[in-house]
Amino acid sequence: VERVKDRHVVIVVFPGFQPLDAVGPFEVFSGANRAAGALGRAGGYRVTLASVDGSPVTSESGLSLGTTTLPGPAERIDTLLLSGGGGTRAARHDVELIDWVRDRSTRARRVATVCTGAFLAAEAGRLDGRRVTTHWAAAAELQADYPSLQVDADPIYIKDGKYWTAPA
Amino acid sequence: VERVKDRHVVIVVFPGFQPLDAVGPFEVFSGANRAAGALGRAGGYRVTLASVDGSPVTSESGLSLGTTTLPGPAERIDTLLLSGGGGTRAARHDVELIDWVRDRSTRARRVATVCTGAFLAAEAGRLDGRRVTTHWAAAAELQADYPSLQVDADPIYIKDGKYWTAPA
Repeated sequence: VERVKDRHVVIVVFPGFQPLDAVGPFEVFSGANRAAGALGRAGGYRVTLASVDGSPVTSESGLSLGTTTLPGPAERIDTLLLSGGGGTRAARHDVELIDWVRDRSTRARRVATVCTGAFLAAEAGRLDGRRVTTHWAAAAELQADYPSLQVDADPIYIKDGKYWTAPA
Repeated sequence: VERVKDRHVVIVVFPGFQPLDAVGPFEVFSGANRAAGALGRAGGYRVTLASVDGSPVTSESGLSLGTTTLPGPAERIDTLLLSGGGGTRAARHDVELIDWVRDRSTRARRVATVCTGAFLAAEAGRLDGRRVTTHWAAAAELQADYPSLQVDADPIYIKDGKYWTAPA
């Protein structure tokens, strides 16, 4: 039985990620916990910023954020969120990262990609045949690289099954 | 003569800062540089995230961001930006931080506070007699603690001389 009050949100970053893609969602879920606390209720989310190395990761703007290692298979993930940024072009060739995304996407309750984070889920094969969106400037590249996807650059988000994609 | 192409933007954080107060402005100035580069022009800003200790600083949500030490007196600062967050209540008693803010605010071309970052500039005496704003939930406290300020919680920003204050 899942404990509703402890939904684990795992936000994945990699060298060259876009800081707001990760910090924005982190603060939304953390803020929901604080708002619940202000109402006298228990917070619902545990939020983790994770990377392959589990050490500080440098973003595309130079900001460095502390991370923990990618959660192991025994750790239940409620929401798996993949950040984007210029670094996705290199990160999708990181076999350890992509293997982890492939495995954990299957088991997470829901999976979300921000901006070019869609390239990571696509490389892992998890967006095959799905309607997805990404940053407008990367939409043609995503479609060319992963022809089975149905890429639409216009929506502010698309939900296809448990896969949520957003342009920014 | 100031080199217009190398304006140093120093964003100050402290334990318990609000991550978006710092990361948002950091990405705005970094993004301006990237946009200029895409147009074939040199970027205009050098952006630094700084703290008293110069080591990773933990925010109020638990996110940890890498920082450098507060720039010394020989380092020219164009824009000094003070982030906010729950940690400002403790940070304003950090004598080293407040002394630095007092000294460098005088010499920076412009000074900006985000959210409760206004408490730091106020504690340093730099907002005395000025019209300022802060987060609506902290406006009464700011007014009570620093009676010489003219606190207005409504505007999305106030510019009084070289001092810019914003609620979030």
